[in-house]
Amino acid sequence: MEQNQIQQLVDAVLGSLFVELEASGRHVHVTKEQAQVLFGHPLTPQRSLSQPGQYLAKERVTVVGPKGEFSNVAVLGPERKAGQVEISLTDARTLGVEAAVRLSGDVRNTPGITLKGERGSVTLSEGVIAAQRHIHLTPEDAKKFGVRDKQVVKLQTYTERPVIFEDVAVRVSPDFASYVHLDYDEANACGFQKGDLGRILP
Amino acid sequence: MEQNQIQQLVDAVLGSLFVELEASGRHVHVTKEQAQVLFGHPLTPQRSLSQPGQYLAKERVTVVGPKGEFSNVAVLGPERKAGQVEISLTDARTLGVEAAVRLSGDVRNTPGITLKGERGSVTLSEGVIAAQRHIHLTPEDAKKFGVRDKQVVKLQTYTERPVIFEDVAVRVSPDFASYVHLDYDEANACGFQKGDLGRILP
Repeated sequence: MEQNQIQQLVDAVLGSLFVELEASGRHVHVTKEQAQVLFGHPLTPQRSLSQPGQYLAKERVTVVGPKGEFSNVAVLGPERKAGQVEISLTDARTLGVEAAVRLSGDVRNTPGITLKGERGSVTLSEGVIAAQRHIHLTPEDAKKFGVRDKQVVKLQTYTERPVIFEDVAVRVSPDFASYVHLDYDEANACGFQKGDLGRILP
Repeated sequence: MEQNQIQQLVDAVLGSLFVELEASGRHVHVTKEQAQVLFGHPLTPQRSLSQPGQYLAKERVTVVGPKGEFSNVAVLGPERKAGQVEISLTDARTLGVEAAVRLSGDVRNTPGITLKGERGSVTLSEGVIAAQRHIHLTPEDAKKFGVRDKQVVKLQTYTERPVIFEDVAVRVSPDFASYVHLDYDEANACGFQKGDLGRILP
């Protein structure tokens, strides 16, 4: 038995509560108008994501930065009120942009970037962020964990390279499923594998 | 004052000891024979690194994996007894190799890879690792911190996205300068900036 598995077992016996970890790869959100320009039609759902109502679209884009670009980047639906590009800080270095660490939706004074679709291109004047690590919780789970919306907590990972992440934002909504969202820098820094768990520290 | 700066100040007042963090980009070590094949001559020092006697070479290589490659990769000297390629897990995904998390030099049963230099190519049968995060300490600093060679410790980072790394290997030698070495996944996961400090937790 690995050390992290033993620790997990001990904590489980002690009555701790766990949340499953997920790693978010680089992805893009677009508006209805941007989808029209990029693809000539609205987004087409391909498969559901863990958060209810959210989906991976069939459409893909190329994200073009001043220093580099990524092709075949995932687009998540449904369409939003503003375009947004979520990347890791490693990606930011490749693209040549200074991505700010922000919660999704908080794009004021963030860099812009260009998206290319099969039908057209869109240049965002802002919207490039590295998503702040965060925990989606249902109101029921938030109550169990004793945390509230917008609280910042520490999170212990039960992973191959265990880490305690210190500035993890809690987001509570009846529209959520309970999952921790890390970017790939964070996922790799803790040696994340699908199914691994985290624990909110008291 | 940022929260991490305040925490750092408090800990400093309480008499804690700090070690400077460094982020190691992807790089390669080669043998004398491999340098001869790759470049037609031994490595040429370009600039000194933080560890005494270690240097960045003028020579560069392309690292070629099954799925992708990186050009212009740093080669560190002096030459070693075995070739080794140190990458992040993000890099491993790009190259298409399953890099093991290992201490430098521990390359048994790790994947191989091909290196291309300006004069020739070398295929390593093993040697691709993601360096386990580690702290180089002088014997004096190890004594101050109360830790010993090969001990595994927790390390608190005083960075923009603070993290406690849990499985950090301590390496003690009179040949070392005291620095924490993180890879770029880890550096980005904690929002590392040059000059940031870490603290070994009791």
